[in-house]
Amino acid sequence: MPNPILVEVTRAALVESVHRGSIAIADADGAIRFALGDVETPVYSRSSLKPIQALVLVESGAADAFGLGDEEVALACASHSGEPMHTERVAAWLTRIGCGEQDLACGPQAPRYQPASDEMIKRGDKPTRIQNNCSGKHTGFLTVARHWKAPVEGYVRVDHPVQLAVATSLRMLSGIEELPWGVDGCVAPNFALPLAGFARALAKLAGGKTPGAERILRSMIAHPDLVAGTGRACTLLMRAAAGRAAVKVGAEGVYAGMIPERGLGIALKIDDGAGRASETVIAAILDKLGVLDGRAREFLSAPVRNTVGETVGERRPAPALAAAEIR
Amino acid sequence: MPNPILVEVTRAALVESVHRGSIAIADADGAIRFALGDVETPVYSRSSLKPIQALVLVESGAADAFGLGDEEVALACASHSGEPMHTERVAAWLTRIGCGEQDLACGPQAPRYQPASDEMIKRGDKPTRIQNNCSGKHTGFLTVARHWKAPVEGYVRVDHPVQLAVATSLRMLSGIEELPWGVDGCVAPNFALPLAGFARALAKLAGGKTPGAERILRSMIAHPDLVAGTGRACTLLMRAAAGRAAVKVGAEGVYAGMIPERGLGIALKIDDGAGRASETVIAAILDKLGVLDGRAREFLSAPVRNTVGETVGERRPAPALAAAEIR
Repeated sequence: MPNPILVEVTRAALVESVHRGSIAIADADGAIRFALGDVETPVYSRSSLKPIQALVLVESGAADAFGLGDEEVALACASHSGEPMHTERVAAWLTRIGCGEQDLACGPQAPRYQPASDEMIKRGDKPTRIQNNCSGKHTGFLTVARHWKAPVEGYVRVDHPVQLAVATSLRMLSGIEELPWGVDGCVAPNFALPLAGFARALAKLAGGKTPGAERILRSMIAHPDLVAGTGRACTLLMRAAAGRAAVKVGAEGVYAGMIPERGLGIALKIDDGAGRASETVIAAILDKLGVLDGRAREFLSAPVRNTVGETVGERRPAPALAAAEIR
Repeated sequence: MPNPILVEVTRAALVESVHRGSIAIADADGAIRFALGDVETPVYSRSSLKPIQALVLVESGAADAFGLGDEEVALACASHSGEPMHTERVAAWLTRIGCGEQDLACGPQAPRYQPASDEMIKRGDKPTRIQNNCSGKHTGFLTVARHWKAPVEGYVRVDHPVQLAVATSLRMLSGIEELPWGVDGCVAPNFALPLAGFARALAKLAGGKTPGAERILRSMIAHPDLVAGTGRACTLLMRAAAGRAAVKVGAEGVYAGMIPERGLGIALKIDDGAGRASETVIAAILDKLGVLDGRAREFLSAPVRNTVGETVGERRPAPALAAAEIR
């Protein structure tokens, strides 16, 4: 059975496009509190996995050994926009662990933040690896490798100790043994698992049931700007949640959410991979759970604008999502 | 019943994302030769309507009255990339009809062509209306208004003579009387119609059954660079068809195709609005119809690459499309 339509995009009186997808919400005891659509087929977790990938940085003792603060931990969880606040901190962190840009396995990527990208173009510079949105995650991996005195080269191989530790954490938290993997956009291995298992893993993080979990949540919530960037959904939604939720986008329509006060983990995937739809869905879920203030309004009903800025349509939760009872 | 999955995007061994949609192919006699999915619910035609919008420019006599060549007619059908070859021709055409950039109702838009956008940023310039991908279509509208001595101001109002003429053409060609409309990204009215009717309209164009149809097709086929731009799907697919097909993308997952030698019209819409999927579908259809050469291979199985350029997955026709018998 196809997944339900979760988001619709209108233009004047018609629905122009629709997005199907599935949602799983678990509590810290591992119970599935809400499910819509298929939550049992493995889906790549993409960058929504970063809070769990960062857990190894904290639990290995590497973060403390190198004197990292919450800012670096937030950057390890980030898909950042390549703003100076991100790249300067990543560059300093690399230096602190005796590494440099050349050690990063992720490819060069232009900053997503327009003014930073414009500056780069005006200077005639090329994109760098530090500007890659995943450079914080990679620097986290390198930090663990350094701490374990493991080889720095090859740290993104799936059989490198750092990646084996990530897979082990994910297995423990999710209860899912079999983790198919593929190569992510940033060259690191990325694991696929059922949304139900992913939501359980996120709920365990949210519930603070592992030693490093509390620190991951605290760092993300304290630094929403570092987890994404100016104008980005993760940043704005975490601000609108005012400390009550951490969220993390992933490519191809994935979103992860954690609500510490209730020990809830949220995992969702849009079938077609559309980020515009995953934003609407995570916002609608957080709204139903009562953790958002009015600043999130634009995510619940996003205007579709033409090139002179007039509103010509709307992106909104479709009936199946709008009517869903999520408490 | 949901539309079938037409395109799948893989990563390593798993299908990561899928795109549903529908397809209608008609012949010049109005017979539906192939249909997959829902072809009866109205969908916005978006920029795939441009060849029909441009028909008014030719059939009104305005194109001849102002001495326009096939290049201008191709630009009237274009969603161009804002390259100098596009903007310089549109600017000269505006001058020829006694208009200027200030008369264009479309909003300013940065060129899609990266080197042109980089040049703009380096000069510290702002995007212009002539760089808007629809500036050729708008200049076509203005040309008709001038020819008819109708007011230039308000030419994008749905009750302006130019827009009334577009709607009349679309009704005549498609056989669809009721045309719901919304405001397109470029501020012009855009009409919605069932894919079956849209395919019939395109087949009538392809079959040369209206006086201006042959000229529209000839202009698009002669100038694939002007209809889109460097590296764009419309341009590359028309080159790979070597004169045997004209194609036109539309926003939100729409594609139109015309095969003059067989009088076929093709209309398709991806449910979720993804352009990556509509490209794959139009390429697969043209390939099945035998009008593409090897240069289109990259569209039939497009590599998904990571940030260091390695292939990590594939975008390809899903089984329902791969198995479809389209002749």
